[in-house]
Amino acid sequence: MHPVTFSATLDEALNLVGTFVFALSGALLAVRKHYDIIGMIVLAEITAIGGGVLRDLVLGAVPPAAFTDHISFLLPIAAAVLTFFTHARMNRIQAAVLVFDAAGLAVFCVSGAAKAVAYGIGPIESVALGALTAVGGGIMRDMLANEQPVVLREDSTLYAVPAVLGAAIVVVVTHLHRYGPAVAALAAALVFAVRLGALRYGWHAPHPKRNGPQGDDDL
Amino acid sequence: MHPVTFSATLDEALNLVGTFVFALSGALLAVRKHYDIIGMIVLAEITAIGGGVLRDLVLGAVPPAAFTDHISFLLPIAAAVLTFFTHARMNRIQAAVLVFDAAGLAVFCVSGAAKAVAYGIGPIESVALGALTAVGGGIMRDMLANEQPVVLREDSTLYAVPAVLGAAIVVVVTHLHRYGPAVAALAAALVFAVRLGALRYGWHAPHPKRNGPQGDDDL
Amino acid sequence: MHPVTFSATLDEALNLVGTFVFALSGALLAVRKHYDIIGMIVLAEITAIGGGVLRDLVLGAVPPAAFTDHISFLLPIAAAVLTFFTHARMNRIQAAVLVFDAAGLAVFCVSGAAKAVAYGIGPIESVALGALTAVGGGIMRDMLANEQPVVLREDSTLYAVPAVLGAAIVVVVTHLHRYGPAVAALAAALVFAVRLGALRYGWHAPHPKRNGPQGDDDL
Repeated sequence: MHPVTFSATLDEALNLVGTFVFALSGALLAVRKHYDIIGMIVLAEITAIGGGVLRDLVLGAVPPAAFTDHISFLLPIAAAVLTFFTHARMNRIQAAVLVFDAAGLAVFCVSGAAKAVAYGIGPIESVALGALTAVGGGIMRDMLANEQPVVLREDSTLYAVPAVLGAAIVVVVTHLHRYGPAVAALAAALVFAVRLGALRYGWHAPHPKRNGPQGDDDL
Repeated sequence: MHPVTFSATLDEALNLVGTFVFALSGALLAVRKHYDIIGMIVLAEITAIGGGVLRDLVLGAVPPAAFTDHISFLLPIAAAVLTFFTHARMNRIQAAVLVFDAAGLAVFCVSGAAKAVAYGIGPIESVALGALTAVGGGIMRDMLANEQPVVLREDSTLYAVPAVLGAAIVVVVTHLHRYGPAVAALAAALVFAVRLGALRYGWHAPHPKRNGPQGDDDL
Repeated sequence: MHPVTFSATLDEALNLVGTFVFALSGALLAVRKHYDIIGMIVLAEITAIGGGVLRDLVLGAVPPAAFTDHISFLLPIAAAVLTFFTHARMNRIQAAVLVFDAAGLAVFCVSGAAKAVAYGIGPIESVALGALTAVGGGIMRDMLANEQPVVLREDSTLYAVPAVLGAAIVVVVTHLHRYGPAVAALAAALVFAVRLGALRYGWHAPHPKRNGPQGDDDL
């Protein structure tokens, strides 16, 4: 069902990396919220598979891939258990987690968009589904933890933008009949680079102008 | 797939108005929360198409209409961009937005209930799906923005009630084999009028009695 | 569609009890948040049918059972109306509500896992879907009410664990071709007992070690 993006092996490997690092980010948030091991597993699962499950429900690809491919389900549990025992050290490698998270973002927006196109969804909608695959799990993680979703925070650096960019490349190139492993790899690499650039240099999307101190701040 | 409600043209026009004004309400909330343009687009999309997508997932009508009919997807982006540049002036026309929002509520509960009946869903459930189509997007908007959903707020004026009323009329009249453009238009007009009346005169649904000052306020 | 678990009659009766008591817990939360009767019905519905609807969407069993079996839909409305008039007295029977809630947890994890297995889902995923059926409605209730989900709270007693346990028993025994009414009843009874034990004796799942007062508490 899952369309080949790079080579099947590279695609699979990157998907596993994406699943694992997204799960780590969920488990680490659970530690910070003082949840128990169950809460850690719940947040790890939802972050890792949430975006793909939403995409598959919209596509009518049920049961979603995460419920048929056993590894997608077990990997987040492993990530939660690992985090349980080593979270003190992990926080020191927060930077590494952000890098892995950028890798997950990159591979999920590419594979998500490719799957949407393969299901015959229109171009704009395929870009949206690709981006949803990449950012949906993180949004569900933050909603469950009763936090402002990271992608919506006032001071967030570019996160959805590189995902949209990567998905758009996949869709455009597929419509030009030029999609293949090289393009997929390049699109993912670009997403990865833009996300790392945003983290390093604090790139932001534009904000609407404020209305001065009297403002419209209060609802 | 979408059953004709009024005339196809009137139905389509009203659906577009509903989509656009719901998107405006999402984009305006994003401005007040100091989100960037990406956050504005996300909230505009979810508010405009969220209710219909939920309805279609429940009906098994996948991909949901919003993912096959391109305009539903582009209109919220346009609404977010418009809001980005003109939100200062928009807040002065808040009253107009509430009127348009009431129009969206009216047309979505009618078209949502009609679609549910067309899919062979039972009467009670069709009423619920019609109401969900009308209020679901707003609920998802508020959950994403980490706000109390407007339909659940302590001081909310009648919002779900007119939607239930409009959906119920559609369902009853369809079961009497009397459903047609005139009935649909009348049902939508009634929803619109009741919602405007609730806004103007502060109509509320009944609250359960409080237990006095010691109360049961603390969870 | 719904696989027989105990006897059809016992299964149905327990499902109705589960639906009703979950609806009561939603309606009571709505009272505490000072929602009106509409908010009470919304929270009662979502708590009672939310978990099963999520399960059915994932399984592709649409429309979900709650939208075809009329009683699932009407019972939460009845629970909300009952709560509207009698909530003052109900709070005094909070203990009874917790007992009924444990019964709902027990029957929903068993019937959810059995349905997932019947749809050909793998063992791990069936356990997860069984647990999701049992705890999903409560999570959606708390998210809608803008509260920390009860299953994720720092001080929560075992709640998901007995649900996972019950679902796992169903899955294992089904794979051994030994599943039947007696096993289902025993699994549900065990879930019920473990949940009551957790409430009575304050059993918790393990927490990850804190990092001392300087901690990693601040995000």
